[in-house]
Amino acid sequence: MTKHLMSQFDADLLDIRTRLLEMGGKVEKMIADAIKSLVERDSELAARTIDYDYEINRLEVEIDERCLEVLALRQPTAGDLRFITLAMKIVTHLERIGDKSRNIARRVRELNELSPFESHIDLLRMADLAAVMVSDALDAFVRLDYQLACAVCTRENEVDLLNEQFQRELVTFMSDHPETITRFIKISAVVRALERIADHATNIAEMVIFMVKGKDVRHLVQ
Amino acid sequence: MTKHLMSQFDADLLDIRTRLLEMGGKVEKMIADAIKSLVERDSELAARTIDYDYEINRLEVEIDERCLEVLALRQPTAGDLRFITLAMKIVTHLERIGDKSRNIARRVRELNELSPFESHIDLLRMADLAAVMVSDALDAFVRLDYQLACAVCTRENEVDLLNEQFQRELVTFMSDHPETITRFIKISAVVRALERIADHATNIAEMVIFMVKGKDVRHLVQ
Repeated sequence: MTKHLMSQFDADLLDIRTRLLEMGGKVEKMIADAIKSLVERDSELAARTIDYDYEINRLEVEIDERCLEVLALRQPTAGDLRFITLAMKIVTHLERIGDKSRNIARRVRELNELSPFESHIDLLRMADLAAVMVSDALDAFVRLDYQLACAVCTRENEVDLLNEQFQRELVTFMSDHPETITRFIKISAVVRALERIADHATNIAEMVIFMVKGKDVRHLVQ
Repeated sequence: MTKHLMSQFDADLLDIRTRLLEMGGKVEKMIADAIKSLVERDSELAARTIDYDYEINRLEVEIDERCLEVLALRQPTAGDLRFITLAMKIVTHLERIGDKSRNIARRVRELNELSPFESHIDLLRMADLAAVMVSDALDAFVRLDYQLACAVCTRENEVDLLNEQFQRELVTFMSDHPETITRFIKISAVVRALERIADHATNIAEMVIFMVKGKDVRHLVQ
């Protein structure tokens, strides 16, 4: 579609879409950086990740305002109306994912003040899964890709299983080594935060399925 | 305002407002029941609380659809547009609060299969604080009450401090009595869920402040 053939309204929708993807990319980087700072014990990266949350917050407000502006000016109906109100819900989820990543980075700074720990918990794998889910959920939204949205929902089970397995392992380890409790409680919080991030991605994917199929699966997949 | 003097649009807004408050009341009851089932070791009440989450999910979908309908039919602008899109964001938060209460009830059922525990953690006080915050945040929304919304944000600090204090006490207790770890990890999850509920209430209150003052405090109060 060349620019001059595009209506102003189409351009508005494209703008919202682009900004959402941009926010999504930044949030994915926050997740990756938070976990990298943990694995590499890099407190400076953790601090930068915490600070970066301001940028995510700013984007939330900005995209929200842009959506309201388009709603007021263009008074869209049907699919376009759903698209914009959904975008407004998605930014809330992205902002929460930013918060979770910031919380991980905070735990990392606390952990780096304690002695290093040996853990068999594969945090990198879980973080990677969660970040891909966020990315796929947003792609599913901008492309209205039903199959991709369903795939995100399916992958949530995998993250849930990892979370349960890791939490069980952590409790066993803590029971055997009570002196490690403080450290492992923090690791447990990191695992839970990753599970929550996957959960937000799933919420987004479920809303996309609803939008595409006009059928609400948000509460069928429990 | 008598009914025949009310425009259809005013009636629509009143309807959204009423339904939101109804959903809010049900969510508050879920929080109270979840904690009651814990304190009284009442697994049956816990099971009913878990089931009740379906009702909250149904209300989310219903209010969301109602808002979309009003947006499409009445094409509101300015304050009314903000009100309706805000209502759509608020139902998402209320639904998450329902999820958190359901999660508390799930932990309760697991805890009731273990031997009773003696804890000095004042869960009732924390639950009460969180439920009042939810109620006040919704009241602030329907009455556009700036002062009340600010009061909710202030009270979040109180809940945060309680959360930190309780988590510290739990870790100390677990370190001294490693055999209690499984139980206390679950209690710790309940405390955290209450803190998350208060957090959702604060998110609602911050959006109300933004709506009333046209100023975004969502990310000033960190």
